[in-house]
Amino acid sequence: MTLPGLRIALPDWVESFVSLDCVYSSAEDRMGLAIGLSRQNVEHGTGGPFGAAVFELDGGRLVSVGMNLVVASHNSALHAEMVALMMAQHRLASHTLRDPKFPDHEIVTSCDPCAMCLGAVLWSGVRRLVCGADREDARGLGFDEGPVFPESYGYLEERGIDVVRGVLRDESRGVLQQYRDAGGVIYNG
Amino acid sequence: MTLPGLRIALPDWVESFVSLDCVYSSAEDRMGLAIGLSRQNVEHGTGGPFGAAVFELDGGRLVSVGMNLVVASHNSALHAEMVALMMAQHRLASHTLRDPKFPDHEIVTSCDPCAMCLGAVLWSGVRRLVCGADREDARGLGFDEGPVFPESYGYLEERGIDVVRGVLRDESRGVLQQYRDAGGVIYNG
Repeated sequence: MTLPGLRIALPDWVESFVSLDCVYSSAEDRMGLAIGLSRQNVEHGTGGPFGAAVFELDGGRLVSVGMNLVVASHNSALHAEMVALMMAQHRLASHTLRDPKFPDHEIVTSCDPCAMCLGAVLWSGVRRLVCGADREDARGLGFDEGPVFPESYGYLEERGIDVVRGVLRDESRGVLQQYRDAGGVIYNG
Repeated sequence: MTLPGLRIALPDWVESFVSLDCVYSSAEDRMGLAIGLSRQNVEHGTGGPFGAAVFELDGGRLVSVGMNLVVASHNSALHAEMVALMMAQHRLASHTLRDPKFPDHEIVTSCDPCAMCLGAVLWSGVRRLVCGADREDARGLGFDEGPVFPESYGYLEERGIDVVRGVLRDESRGVLQQYRDAGGVIYNG
């Protein structure tokens, strides 16, 4: 039989919600976009309540966006951070965002990354990880976060990745609550 | 601008190297395939020295294969385990391999998974993780494995995933050596 390939694409609503290359100056502006993506994803019923975006660290140009696409895409790897990082590397045609020919990049995610995404952040080449809701907020909703320990963040920081947590946490947590209230699917609980 | 999508496909050599649905009875047979994939990947110059495959746990029918495609695909998430798990879920049209309508599945990988892949194994729905070369073998080659701690494996086991390590370790380590001797790219070292 022919071996299958697969395609990863963003939901249709994304095109009218964001414009790549727009500038998001502050940490709150950038997190606001990540949370907006999580909320749109819930409201359109296209996935779990998580959003992420990759920006140029200085200046804040938007490079890529991602949102949880696990259930609809039949792909448990498609957390918001994974999608945003894959799309950024695809756009730059490079397996790493940390290259002298590129400016520095950061990923901004509406919730603390799970174990898979934390590892992916390390391999991606971003210089900074910015998180909104806390791991415990996700766990409170029933989403397991996997084997992430305090020293996991230290591991990234030792390798030159700044970690900033709790940006607009309440607003991001509100989308988790909205998802639960709407009866959203809690997979891998 | 139009938001990009991306396609994940296996190298051309894979089609003639494996046949999906063939049966691999023993743990060594299954690991032999994972190592064979890693070796072919090195010899064809299509990626790093890592291979993986998903099997039905009982019976050993081959469901999917994966190999490291990071550099060629411009995608730092495409470790062998990630590719194999994505392809298995794509084939079964399900975001989880753990479903009453499916038999149990396992992933067999030529080397201990990195932090990202260990998390992905947890979300995938496999019932068993079987590893060849040790984390230290990969690190000896210059490949960082990320924040994986002894309790990371315990975390998976507590959630019903059996972990078996060190199957055909020497043979798998031999491919790592072959890659280094051939001057293979060590990214994220």
